[in-house]
Amino acid sequence: MKIPLAAWLSSTQWRLTLRDDVLAGIVVGIVLIPQSLGYALLAGLPPVYGLYATIVPVLIYALVGSSNTQAIGAVAITSIMTAQALAPFAQGQPSRYIALAALMALVVGIILLVAALLKLGWIMRFISRGVMAAFITGAAILIITGQVKYVFGLHSRGDTFPQLLWGFWQQKNDINLVTLLLGLSATLVLWLNRRYMTLLLVKFKLSSITANITAKLVPIGVIFLASLVVYQWSLASRGVSIVGAIPAGLPTFALPVLAEHSQWLTLLSSALLIALIAFISSASVAKSVALQRQESFDANSELFGLGLANISGAFFQGLPIAGGFSRTAVNIEAGAKTPLAGIVSAIIVMLVLLLASAWFYYLPLAVLGAGVIVAVSNLIDLRTLKMAWRSDKTEALAYVLTLLGVLLAGLQIGLVIGFMWSLLALIWRSNQPHVAVVGQLGQTAEFRNIERHHVKTWPKLLLLRIDENLFFGNSDKVASRVWQEVDKRPELADVVLIFSAINHVDLSSQWMLKNVEQQLLARNIQLHFAEIKGFVMDKLINTPLIEEWHGKIFATTEQAVAALTPSPCEPEYNL
Amino acid sequence: MKIPLAAWLSSTQWRLTLRDDVLAGIVVGIVLIPQSLGYALLAGLPPVYGLYATIVPVLIYALVGSSNTQAIGAVAITSIMTAQALAPFAQGQPSRYIALAALMALVVGIILLVAALLKLGWIMRFISRGVMAAFITGAAILIITGQVKYVFGLHSRGDTFPQLLWGFWQQKNDINLVTLLLGLSATLVLWLNRRYMTLLLVKFKLSSITANITAKLVPIGVIFLASLVVYQWSLASRGVSIVGAIPAGLPTFALPVLAEHSQWLTLLSSALLIALIAFISSASVAKSVALQRQESFDANSELFGLGLANISGAFFQGLPIAGGFSRTAVNIEAGAKTPLAGIVSAIIVMLVLLLASAWFYYLPLAVLGAGVIVAVSNLIDLRTLKMAWRSDKTEALAYVLTLLGVLLAGLQIGLVIGFMWSLLALIWRSNQPHVAVVGQLGQTAEFRNIERHHVKTWPKLLLLRIDENLFFGNSDKVASRVWQEVDKRPELADVVLIFSAINHVDLSSQWMLKNVEQQLLARNIQLHFAEIKGFVMDKLINTPLIEEWHGKIFATTEQAVAALTPSPCEPEYNL
Repeated sequence: MKIPLAAWLSSTQWRLTLRDDVLAGIVVGIVLIPQSLGYALLAGLPPVYGLYATIVPVLIYALVGSSNTQAIGAVAITSIMTAQALAPFAQGQPSRYIALAALMALVVGIILLVAALLKLGWIMRFISRGVMAAFITGAAILIITGQVKYVFGLHSRGDTFPQLLWGFWQQKNDINLVTLLLGLSATLVLWLNRRYMTLLLVKFKLSSITANITAKLVPIGVIFLASLVVYQWSLASRGVSIVGAIPAGLPTFALPVLAEHSQWLTLLSSALLIALIAFISSASVAKSVALQRQESFDANSELFGLGLANISGAFFQGLPIAGGFSRTAVNIEAGAKTPLAGIVSAIIVMLVLLLASAWFYYLPLAVLGAGVIVAVSNLIDLRTLKMAWRSDKTEALAYVLTLLGVLLAGLQIGLVIGFMWSLLALIWRSNQPHVAVVGQLGQTAEFRNIERHHVKTWPKLLLLRIDENLFFGNSDKVASRVWQEVDKRPELADVVLIFSAINHVDLSSQWMLKNVEQQLLARNIQLHFAEIKGFVMDKLINTPLIEEWHGKIFATTEQAVAALTPSPCEPEYNL
Repeated sequence: MKIPLAAWLSSTQWRLTLRDDVLAGIVVGIVLIPQSLGYALLAGLPPVYGLYATIVPVLIYALVGSSNTQAIGAVAITSIMTAQALAPFAQGQPSRYIALAALMALVVGIILLVAALLKLGWIMRFISRGVMAAFITGAAILIITGQVKYVFGLHSRGDTFPQLLWGFWQQKNDINLVTLLLGLSATLVLWLNRRYMTLLLVKFKLSSITANITAKLVPIGVIFLASLVVYQWSLASRGVSIVGAIPAGLPTFALPVLAEHSQWLTLLSSALLIALIAFISSASVAKSVALQRQESFDANSELFGLGLANISGAFFQGLPIAGGFSRTAVNIEAGAKTPLAGIVSAIIVMLVLLLASAWFYYLPLAVLGAGVIVAVSNLIDLRTLKMAWRSDKTEALAYVLTLLGVLLAGLQIGLVIGFMWSLLALIWRSNQPHVAVVGQLGQTAEFRNIERHHVKTWPKLLLLRIDENLFFGNSDKVASRVWQEVDKRPELADVVLIFSAINHVDLSSQWMLKNVEQQLLARNIQLHFAEIKGFVMDKLINTPLIEEWHGKIFATTEQAVAALTPSPCEPEYNL
C-alpha cells in the first residue's frame, strides 16, 4: 500500500513543490469553510462540525491516503445520508445526535478499513453507472428541496420528496420575508458567480486558472458580507436564523458513544451504504485525478486511507467524510502537487477556529443553504439518463427506478433498489442467449448471420453460432433453438456449433450438449463443434462431453465447412 | 395450452390404444399402492392419505396435464419437504396436521397455477443441475435415515441428519427386535428384487418389459405377505406398529382449514420451495418422456396441470403431489399411450379403498419404511458430483454446499444455499473477463492467443480479444488490462479491440471505452474495434460511443491488420 507522504518526504525535490503546495493549501482551506459549514448543516449538525471534520481526518489522509491531491471532508451526499440515517435516533436531543454522527463516522471508517484488508475494492464496480448517476441526482434533488427551508426561513423536516413538499405546504404562511430576501439574493449571486464569473474574469485577461480560483473564493466573501448585513441591521431580531455562538478552539478528543442495542442493526446497514457511497465517490475522484496525472490508482489503498480518516475523525467530534470533487479540483487548479497542500488547508481551518470563530456568529443559515443549493445543483445528471435511453434501455430503467426510489422511499432504499435491479438485469440477460444461423460470406473466411448478410449456406449443413456463455440458466433455450433450426431442414446431415463467443460451459450445459448430440444421432444427424477457445477447451478436455464426443471438433468454421461440404473452399483454407 | 385428453378423445384412433392403456392403468394402480402408503407415512400422515392423493388429482391431471403418460401422486421429495414444513405447526394434533397438509397442497397448487399464468416455466432453469442433484441426494439420505426408525421400531424425530442420528442414539435400547427382523428382511427382499429380479426373469426368457413390470409388482406382494405374518402370529401385540384401521371408502370433500396469521409467512415460503421442486421434478420427468416419444413439451402447461391437480387434491384430504419418475416409467413400460391409463389407475385405487381397505390393517410400518428406503436409495446421485469435480469446480462446490446445507440445516435452507451460490458464481464469473492478446496464425484468417500459439504480431499494433460481455461489473478490469498491455509496448500506434465474443455492451462499459480511447489518444495511440456483431452494432450505432468514435471499425480482424500494418496480407483478404 503506497503512502504518498513518505514517498514525498523521501524525495529530494519537495522543495520545488513547496510554494505551490502551500498556496494551494491556503486556497483550499478558505474554499473549504463555507462548504463545510453548509454540509454540516445538511447533516443535521451545527455548522462548526463541518470545520472539525476537515482537520484531523485531513491530516491523517495526507499521511496515508492513496491520492496526492484529493481533498476530503464533509461532502453533500454522505452528509444527507447521515442525516437520513440518524433522524430516527435523535429523539430531539442535539447532543445525542452529535454523538451518533461521530459514532457513524467510526463505524463507516471501520467498515472501510475492513474492506481494505479484505481487498474489496472491486465492490465499487457493482454499482452501475446509471444507478450511481440516478442516486446522486436524487440526492441532489432531496438536498436542494431540503435546503429551501433555510432560504425561506422554515423548519420543515422530511426524508422523502413528498414529505418535504408537504412540509412547505403546511408552513407556507410562516415564510420569513427578510430571510427569504437574504437567501434568494445569496442564491442568485452565488449562481451567477458559478455560472459566469470565470468567463467574465477571463475577459479581463486573467488566466483561466486564476479566474477559476477567484470564482471559488467568492462564496467566502458572500458569507462575510451576509454576516455583516445581519449584524449591521440586527436582522437576527427580525427572525433570521443565524449560526450563533461557536465554541472557540479546536475539536476536542471524545470517545464516540455507543448506540442502544436495538439501534445497531439499522445503524450498521446505514453505515454500510454510507461507506459504499463515500468510497465510490472518493475513489472515482482519486481515480480520475490519478489518470490525469498518469499516476497509478489502487482502490484498496484508497479504502484504507478513507477508513483511517473517518475513524480518526470520529474521535474529534466528526461525521462521515469522503473525497470532495469540487474542492479537489480547486486543489489541483491551485497547483497542489503533494499531500502537503492538505496539511496546509487543515492548518488554515485550525487558525480560523482558533482566531476567527466569532466571525461566524451572525452568518445567516439562509446563505449557507443558498451555498449548498448552488453547489449541489450541478450534481443533477440527466445526461446519463438520456445516454442510457439511447444505448442501454435496461440501464435507463435502472436509472428511473433508482431515482424514484430515492425520491419516494429515501436514499438507502433507492440505492438498494437500483443495485438489485442491476443484478436481476444481469441474470436475465444471460438467460436470453442469442443464437445465430451463419453462412459463408463470399469466398472469405467470414461467417455471418444469414438474417443480416447474403451468405452461402448448405442444405445438409447447419452452422449455429452461440453468442452467450452456456450455463444452467440458458442451456435449455439453446437446445430448443437448435431443435427449432434442425426441424426446418429435412436433408440435414451435420450441425456445427460455433463456440467463438463462448467462454464458459457449465455442467448443466455439458449435459444438455450430450443429450442434444444423442437425440440428433437418433435422427442420423451428426453434431460438431468449432472455434472452441483454448482456455475453454482446457476446462472441457477431461469431461465426458469431449471424451465421449462422436462428432468432430474443428479449429475454425471454414475448416468445418471444408470438411463437411462437397465443394471445398480454396486450398489455403484447409490447414 | 394443449389438453391431451381432448386431443385424444377427438382422435378416432383411441380404440387402438384402449387395451394398452387399461392394462397399464391396472399395473400402475397396483404399483402405486405401496408407494403411496409409504410416502404418506414419510409426509407424517396416516398411510391411507397417500391413496387419497392418487385419485382426484390423477383424474384432474389426466384431463389437463401436459404429459400423456406421466403418473403423478405423492412422491418422496415433496413428501419429506411437507413433513419438515409442517412439523413446527402440528403441535402434536394429528387432525390439525392432516388439515395443514391439505392446506399446503392448496397453496402449492395456487402457486403453480399463478406461475403458469405468468409463464414462469423458465424459472426451473435457475436450479442448476449440480444443486438439484445434491438436493435430491441429501433428501434421499434424510429420508432413509428417517425411515430407519420404522425398521427399528423407534419413534425418534428430526429434520436434520445430526438430529436423526442423535435420536437413534438416545433410543438405542428401545429397539423392537421383531420389528427389526420384519423390517430388515423386507428391506433385503425388496432390495434383491430391485437389483436382480429383472435380470433373473429375463434369464427365464421373459421379455425385459414383462420382467420389469413383474419386478415392480413384487412390493405389493411383500406388503400382503408381511401383513399376513403379522396377523398370523399377532405380532402387533409384540410391539410391531401396524397401519391399523383405515376408514373404508373414498376421500371425502373437505375445505382446507386456514393457518393462523402468524404461520402464513413460514407456510408460504415452504410452499414456494415445495412448488418449485414439485414442478422441476415433474417437468423433468414429463420432458424426458416427451423427448423419447418425440412429443413437444411445454413447461407452462405442465405448471398448469400440476397446479390444478394439487388444488383439486387439497379438497379431498390431499397432500402436495408431483410427477413420479418410477411410476411413470412403469406406466410407459406397461404400454400407456394416453391419459386413459391415469384414469384407470385412479379407478383401481378407488376400488381398493372401497373393497380392500381392511386388508391394510395388519400392514407393519416397518415394511412400508423398507419399501421407501429401497425406493429412494437410487435417488442418491454422486455421479453428478464426480462429473462436476472434473469439469466444473464451481458446480462441484455448489453440490457440496447444497448437500451439507440439506443434511445439516434442512431441505429448504440447503436448497436456498445452493441457489444463492449459483447466482453468486454467475455474477463472479462475469466479473472475471478473459482478455487475450491475439496474433495472426501463419497466413490464415485466424487470430489466436499469443500465449497458446506461434502467431505473428506487430510492434505498432496490439490486437486484444475481449472474451466476455462488457458490463459495469467487469469494465474496469478490461480497461486496466488494456493499459497493462499498452504499457508493455513503447512503439504502439494502434490498438484493436476484437468484439467477436461480445454480445452486450452496457452504458458503464461504453463510458469506459470512451475514456480509454481519449486517454490513448493523449499518448498518440488510436483505438479501433473489429468484429462487432450485427445485433450488438444495432444497439451501439446511435450511442455517443460510436457516433463520436475517432478510430476505425473493421468487419474482421484481418481487415484491421491489412489496414494497420505495413505488410498487407494477401489481396483476397482486403474486401
